[in-house]
Amino acid sequence: MLGIGVFGAGGRVGKLVVDLAKKSQEVKLECVYVRKDLDFSIDPGVLITGDLKVLLESSAVVIDFTTAEGTRALLEVALNNPKPIVIGTTGLESHHENLIKEASKKMPILYASNLSLGVAVLNKAVKLVASALKDFDIEIVETHHHHKKDSPSGTALRLAQTCAKARNLELDKVRTSGRNGNIGERHKDEIGVMALRGGDVAGIHNVGFYGEGEYLELIHTATSRATFAQGAIKAALWLQKQPNGLYSIEDSLGL
Amino acid sequence: MLGIGVFGAGGRVGKLVVDLAKKSQEVKLECVYVRKDLDFSIDPGVLITGDLKVLLESSAVVIDFTTAEGTRALLEVALNNPKPIVIGTTGLESHHENLIKEASKKMPILYASNLSLGVAVLNKAVKLVASALKDFDIEIVETHHHHKKDSPSGTALRLAQTCAKARNLELDKVRTSGRNGNIGERHKDEIGVMALRGGDVAGIHNVGFYGEGEYLELIHTATSRATFAQGAIKAALWLQKQPNGLYSIEDSLGL
Amino acid sequence: MLGIGVFGAGGRVGKLVVDLAKKSQEVKLECVYVRKDLDFSIDPGVLITGDLKVLLESSAVVIDFTTAEGTRALLEVALNNPKPIVIGTTGLESHHENLIKEASKKMPILYASNLSLGVAVLNKAVKLVASALKDFDIEIVETHHHHKKDSPSGTALRLAQTCAKARNLELDKVRTSGRNGNIGERHKDEIGVMALRGGDVAGIHNVGFYGEGEYLELIHTATSRATFAQGAIKAALWLQKQPNGLYSIEDSLGL
Amino acid sequence: MLGIGVFGAGGRVGKLVVDLAKKSQEVKLECVYVRKDLDFSIDPGVLITGDLKVLLESSAVVIDFTTAEGTRALLEVALNNPKPIVIGTTGLESHHENLIKEASKKMPILYASNLSLGVAVLNKAVKLVASALKDFDIEIVETHHHHKKDSPSGTALRLAQTCAKARNLELDKVRTSGRNGNIGERHKDEIGVMALRGGDVAGIHNVGFYGEGEYLELIHTATSRATFAQGAIKAALWLQKQPNGLYSIEDSLGL
Repeated sequence: MLGIGVFGAGGRVGKLVVDLAKKSQEVKLECVYVRKDLDFSIDPGVLITGDLKVLLESSAVVIDFTTAEGTRALLEVALNNPKPIVIGTTGLESHHENLIKEASKKMPILYASNLSLGVAVLNKAVKLVASALKDFDIEIVETHHHHKKDSPSGTALRLAQTCAKARNLELDKVRTSGRNGNIGERHKDEIGVMALRGGDVAGIHNVGFYGEGEYLELIHTATSRATFAQGAIKAALWLQKQPNGLYSIEDSLGL
Repeated sequence: MLGIGVFGAGGRVGKLVVDLAKKSQEVKLECVYVRKDLDFSIDPGVLITGDLKVLLESSAVVIDFTTAEGTRALLEVALNNPKPIVIGTTGLESHHENLIKEASKKMPILYASNLSLGVAVLNKAVKLVASALKDFDIEIVETHHHHKKDSPSGTALRLAQTCAKARNLELDKVRTSGRNGNIGERHKDEIGVMALRGGDVAGIHNVGFYGEGEYLELIHTATSRATFAQGAIKAALWLQKQPNGLYSIEDSLGL
Repeated sequence: MLGIGVFGAGGRVGKLVVDLAKKSQEVKLECVYVRKDLDFSIDPGVLITGDLKVLLESSAVVIDFTTAEGTRALLEVALNNPKPIVIGTTGLESHHENLIKEASKKMPILYASNLSLGVAVLNKAVKLVASALKDFDIEIVETHHHHKKDSPSGTALRLAQTCAKARNLELDKVRTSGRNGNIGERHKDEIGVMALRGGDVAGIHNVGFYGEGEYLELIHTATSRATFAQGAIKAALWLQKQPNGLYSIEDSLGL
Repeated sequence: MLGIGVFGAGGRVGKLVVDLAKKSQEVKLECVYVRKDLDFSIDPGVLITGDLKVLLESSAVVIDFTTAEGTRALLEVALNNPKPIVIGTTGLESHHENLIKEASKKMPILYASNLSLGVAVLNKAVKLVASALKDFDIEIVETHHHHKKDSPSGTALRLAQTCAKARNLELDKVRTSGRNGNIGERHKDEIGVMALRGGDVAGIHNVGFYGEGEYLELIHTATSRATFAQGAIKAALWLQKQPNGLYSIEDSLGL
């Protein structure tokens, strides 16, 4: 059994990783990192720590669902205490991603803004369709619960990026996040990425391709956040056997 | 048979009104107004004119699918030559609507940004749901062909207006047409109205109500523009029997 | 605080009622009925029983999420030990429903195959649309997880019933649950009720109205089963104040 | 310009091929075959015939949108008068397909139950997803106008066949076209193919993959039948340059 450590075990997805690990036949929960001010109860036999070095040393793989700041702190300690790390944190900026790249020279790291199997497959199908239907207009709509603070979702941006690359476009130049007023006809290269917010929706991503006489929609719906936790555990099992380097969820799935 | 006149007979929907009128058992095409520079062929027996007064005098009801400017011109002539008028023109502003109100004192006028039966029923269902599910977040998405110049559609704005009224909100203060960046959590009263543009889509309107543990979507899809032409003819048959006044599509359907 | 008893506290939805009751400010969990062979742990202070008479006597309202057989047993004991009862059990047949009717002369009973607020509102909207769009073809599609044994869902059948009544049709004569082969054109009065099964979907119901040139879809999606538990608790709070009689979820919501 | 002949020029899609050919810069309408009892008017310069041999001799490529019986008759005459043929007829049985195979030794034939570009791309994406998400339950839903006599559509069956092949299953053994009653849990290998009928829907195909915690839907919507006519003309332009043999729409698109 693979001994895993969970960074952010008190968070929304981190909690689910802990729950799944308890029931798993393939991984064993070795250590959880929890903020000191957080009341947290766990089975005896699992180490609770507030020290990142201890977390890294006592786990075979670390799973991280925290914040941009949390991930930065983890990586800085990991540079001197390397371990395979699965990063599921969202909202990272380019300087965080540079740090990930740097750290991955010393340890295997898998970083994915969305760890669900379905989204990885969706992304591949989107690439196929965006290339095959070159004249079709692309419009992406994502829906998430009303507490989500950033828009559009990291996953929607990644899907848009996939579309842009398939058409040799720069996403920054063609992305539209809203339309209002007499703005004229749609530009052929435009890629719409609209964000809906409401209720407790776990996550819906709809990538639409609109042509003359027909349109095609590829839609992914997460029915629970457990799918992200499940994806992280599968990724950890795969990652422990890899050499140092930076990996995507697609790599781990052999897509 | 009711003798109708078509203003804008060379336009996208106007053409379809002409086609349907030819096959109809209930209406007879008496007169069409066509721009002088437009090559237009029609059955002998139908009067072709470029004079609005002639159009009004030779028709029992006039159907108008033109532009804001066209509608204004028609109404000004109609003030002295009153006839029942069905207005399906979109993109009218408040001063055009004031003119309609003024004119409706002298003749019956039915004005609707969308003349399909389904949208009228959708609007009524939306009113019911917006009132019954007071805590649910409302997000509206409309999709139209890539030639459409204004966003969001008049129909989407009307549906949003229906929602706002059901909640005692002012639409101008709560409407959002796009989300981008770290904008924080959704405000409870927000009403999202997003516009997608692509391909040759005749018109899709999705009104979503998102709550804790569930969501409800009411979606109308136009499969052809003929539905608007059909709606205009039905409205004309109803309108000819009404006293002077301003009517909505709901009035004509008894909703 | 209203003291509630839960019949079927070890079941899929019963468990969620227990969880919600613990956190509630309005109800207090007094008693749970659990099968003797089931290992069940609960907070001290809550009575655990395997005797229906005890359950009824120690609760102000009883919530029942069991099986047809369970509901029958509960009602028979309740005839001599009347208490307000909320029944969320599905798969009841007409003889069970007769027993409910009989029992409701001695106590207030609320019976609903679906206790979510959204489905109740959907049903009302469906009634409105089925009446207003008399010529439109009706097709209902429901989707549930792959463990569900009965098809179509009770909720889908109820929505179909609502449509049939609005059109003065007998559902048994017009319902279709599948199409295969050269079966000829659709009959005007047909009501399709199709059941999809897959994954862990909590419940999706799509009621479609298809006309010439347009169609309308009313879609309800449950994002978690907690919505049914929440609905049961709200119904219990309402039911305790009612006189003897049989009530629907619509009654409790004032729809 | 490629001289095309249209077999079934009075039919629903055949008419649209004639209309598009008139406006095309790449093909020229040379000959149409029309049933003798059908009143048909066409531009002078186009040959009207009721003789299949004449049709084949006067066209560089023949496009066939007729019936199973029509296609059989055409192929039998073509065996002695070979010409490239695009077959868009639906509802063919295996003996018709054998005849196509036989004929394709003497001429290039492209046969597709759906000639739209989008459906060909959908089929490829479905293959990818069915292979990558091996544990996901597959449910296909198609919707067509209420005049359609056969269920499910040829396209839905082809998509189901693609899924079955990707999983090494025999479609005949795992296909379900409806669910009704207490039928027990879904079998893992089942492939649901449900047919909805209503209004004037040109064609919607939804291929759903349902897993634990997530599901993926790939949906194609035809907004007009012109897309099938357009596809036939593109296929004809490609087919004339090919050697004898049997081709699919995917071949012509280089998918």
